[in-house]
Amino acid sequence: MTGNPRLEELEARLSPGALVTDRDVIDSYSSDKALFCPAGTALALVRAADVDDVVAVMRFATEHRIPVVTQGARTGLSGAANATDGALLLNVAGLDAIVDIDEVNQTCRVQPGVINQDLKTALAGHGLSYPPDPGSVAISTIGGNVATNAGGMCCVKYGVTKDYVRALTVVLADGTVTKLGRQTAKGVAGLDLAALFVGSEGTLGVIVEITLALKPKLAPPVTGVGIFPDMESAGHTVSAYMASGAAPSMLELMDGATVAMINAFGDFGLPDDAGALLLVQSDAAGDSAVAELESFQAIAEVQGATEVFFSDDPADSEMFVAARRAVSPAMERYVAGIGGGELVDDVCVPRSRLGEFFARLAVIEAKYQVEVATAGHAGDGNMHPSVLFDTSDAASVAEAKEAFAEIMQLGLDLGGTITGEHGVGSLKRLWLVRELDEGARLLQAMIKESVDPLGILNPGKMLG
Amino acid sequence: MTGNPRLEELEARLSPGALVTDRDVIDSYSSDKALFCPAGTALALVRAADVDDVVAVMRFATEHRIPVVTQGARTGLSGAANATDGALLLNVAGLDAIVDIDEVNQTCRVQPGVINQDLKTALAGHGLSYPPDPGSVAISTIGGNVATNAGGMCCVKYGVTKDYVRALTVVLADGTVTKLGRQTAKGVAGLDLAALFVGSEGTLGVIVEITLALKPKLAPPVTGVGIFPDMESAGHTVSAYMASGAAPSMLELMDGATVAMINAFGDFGLPDDAGALLLVQSDAAGDSAVAELESFQAIAEVQGATEVFFSDDPADSEMFVAARRAVSPAMERYVAGIGGGELVDDVCVPRSRLGEFFARLAVIEAKYQVEVATAGHAGDGNMHPSVLFDTSDAASVAEAKEAFAEIMQLGLDLGGTITGEHGVGSLKRLWLVRELDEGARLLQAMIKESVDPLGILNPGKMLG
Repeated sequence: MTGNPRLEELEARLSPGALVTDRDVIDSYSSDKALFCPAGTALALVRAADVDDVVAVMRFATEHRIPVVTQGARTGLSGAANATDGALLLNVAGLDAIVDIDEVNQTCRVQPGVINQDLKTALAGHGLSYPPDPGSVAISTIGGNVATNAGGMCCVKYGVTKDYVRALTVVLADGTVTKLGRQTAKGVAGLDLAALFVGSEGTLGVIVEITLALKPKLAPPVTGVGIFPDMESAGHTVSAYMASGAAPSMLELMDGATVAMINAFGDFGLPDDAGALLLVQSDAAGDSAVAELESFQAIAEVQGATEVFFSDDPADSEMFVAARRAVSPAMERYVAGIGGGELVDDVCVPRSRLGEFFARLAVIEAKYQVEVATAGHAGDGNMHPSVLFDTSDAASVAEAKEAFAEIMQLGLDLGGTITGEHGVGSLKRLWLVRELDEGARLLQAMIKESVDPLGILNPGKMLG
Repeated sequence: MTGNPRLEELEARLSPGALVTDRDVIDSYSSDKALFCPAGTALALVRAADVDDVVAVMRFATEHRIPVVTQGARTGLSGAANATDGALLLNVAGLDAIVDIDEVNQTCRVQPGVINQDLKTALAGHGLSYPPDPGSVAISTIGGNVATNAGGMCCVKYGVTKDYVRALTVVLADGTVTKLGRQTAKGVAGLDLAALFVGSEGTLGVIVEITLALKPKLAPPVTGVGIFPDMESAGHTVSAYMASGAAPSMLELMDGATVAMINAFGDFGLPDDAGALLLVQSDAAGDSAVAELESFQAIAEVQGATEVFFSDDPADSEMFVAARRAVSPAMERYVAGIGGGELVDDVCVPRSRLGEFFARLAVIEAKYQVEVATAGHAGDGNMHPSVLFDTSDAASVAEAKEAFAEIMQLGLDLGGTITGEHGVGSLKRLWLVRELDEGARLLQAMIKESVDPLGILNPGKMLG
């Protein structure tokens, strides 16, 4: 009994216990991991137990014109899963079945709440892999990955989430269940609506099943580390190495500040005095991986690397990748130590312009007196400068917000995008308007309105 | 001077000579290569000399509510580029500049009229490759490839056109020019409208520039041939080989009838008495390619192959691929010899079901007394059974149409699609309705209507 007749009507249509009206629980589900994204006061939370619950919520929402915010694990960084006032929070994390793993067709069907790493682990037993590996791989859901078109470290060779999505079952605003895309490797029957729904951040419908294309199990990589005196030389190495025709399976960059934070966090075998560090992997077959690393070494040394080493020992590979994955917790610990906050940018620029990007980033950092620590997926030109600030100092907070915004503008100035993989949500709504030209904005709005005429699906996010 | 005041108004807005009102010329531009797709009587033809011509046509078309059929090389197989009554044919084949080739970012920007093979040739000089290779590679345009999401033989390893499209400049129905997508490797700023326009067959807008992602030049392949007593054993080999974790760069299948036609067409070193033939390539690095072919040989022999051989001699590889590319002309010559016609199906099924597909295809062939010759991209489950018939015999034509349709139904019955890569156009409109569920049909229609509210963009094609 909710004490609210309208919610009691909804409760009667749902699985027992699916509707949550406890205010503390609702509030605890009202935000993702983004900073400075306001969370409204939701009407209620529904933890869907099955697809029928999702259908019931959308029918109810359409009947009563109630906004719906779909959520998975709420690990997003742009506020896309945050509550809006009066909305139903529709959490689908409990729809977490791996429905099918098909070795012959190298596909799987999963519900949206499956954790990315859990899927990887299940697939390994079948000799298969699902490459996309956002930083949140251990905690984020496939549904959330699809809704935000998540990326990660593999993308330089293996692409992003959308490259693996074949078909989606979605529940539309009015509760209609429909299948988009195709189960087969190829298919061009009609507009590619599955592709349209990937990255749509809950604004077009609720994803309740996903068919993913898979790869055969990837070969163990050879992993290399290059130490550089500064970011510019590392950036030029990235450009030159990629231009050489190399196809690394990972090419990650950290600045000196980030390396220092990692070293303070744990011992991963990284030097103390790096100006910048590149982490490179090749999983090419046979001797080719070592040859690719030798090529990297030669190019890095020409560009001024002070030290380059590589190893095909899996333990070394794991340690170096663990170092890269430690960036986020190491930075969190550092930030906690300075009583501060962290705003993570997500710009992506053509990789030929990384050198210029770093030079101008240094100017921004100096201008605003904030600390900026940068790591990112250099092979894709997708960088995550983190603006670190003091949450107790209003001037520091204001400067951080300005620096954060100026870094997005720098991304646009260099022919790039404000968001390579984190999404728009509410955090970058105003910036999305700057990135898109007028025609594209109109198209986005027209399509959104045609699919969600009542505007109840995640209003106030993206362009909404 | 056209003698038509309305057309004179259009002519005044276009580049000199762009407007063509000669009826014979218009008619010669009124069809693509599909059979049994009616071509209407177009109002006029515009051979666009620049993007301004495209804008002028769309503004004029919106003002006067005149349909526009966008065309490239008209090599399509589904009637998507066919004239409709009273339409302007907007031919963009003359917009054929390669605007930019960027070695560092491994991208290029091209106008829509660039021929696929011409782009491949230009890229080779830069150590780059653009894998998608539809059968029409030598004659079809990149714009047409994008508009139909063209596939080809590379797809089993390298994917289809959409996997390479980063950004599109499009002219919308009202003449607005807008940029969709992004220049960078990653980007999630807003709905993925570039993906929506890929495969939209001219129903959403006119593509006037394309940014493509490229691959480093591919390694020379090792090529193998497997001879089988029948299609079922070849089909089972495909399933088993792909399930083994192999990543062939090509895996093509031809039935015995097709092999016989090729042998009648030229000497490509193929045996005379094959029941079925698989053509397999690996371009894996180093020794891995040979290892992949050895694995193929072992699996094929278990499945009953009568002969398997492979070679890393580029001359052998070229000859075998030339044999595969000869399927179309060889079949055309055969068909001409029997005074007949040819209806090419394009179903794609999960590759695990290829064996069942061939068994049921044989039943269809027997039922209808038509000849069916089958080749296709077996690694993707994308098969092209060609129904061969006598154009002078009404009963034969009718049977061919029925067999063609029944093969599409077979594709659907096996969890596949009516079209893997050829598109819907007007040929498969009624079948598209069968493939899509009600929700998907409504979504398609709503999105089309929102983007093209006057319904002037390629009306009567796809769902329109």
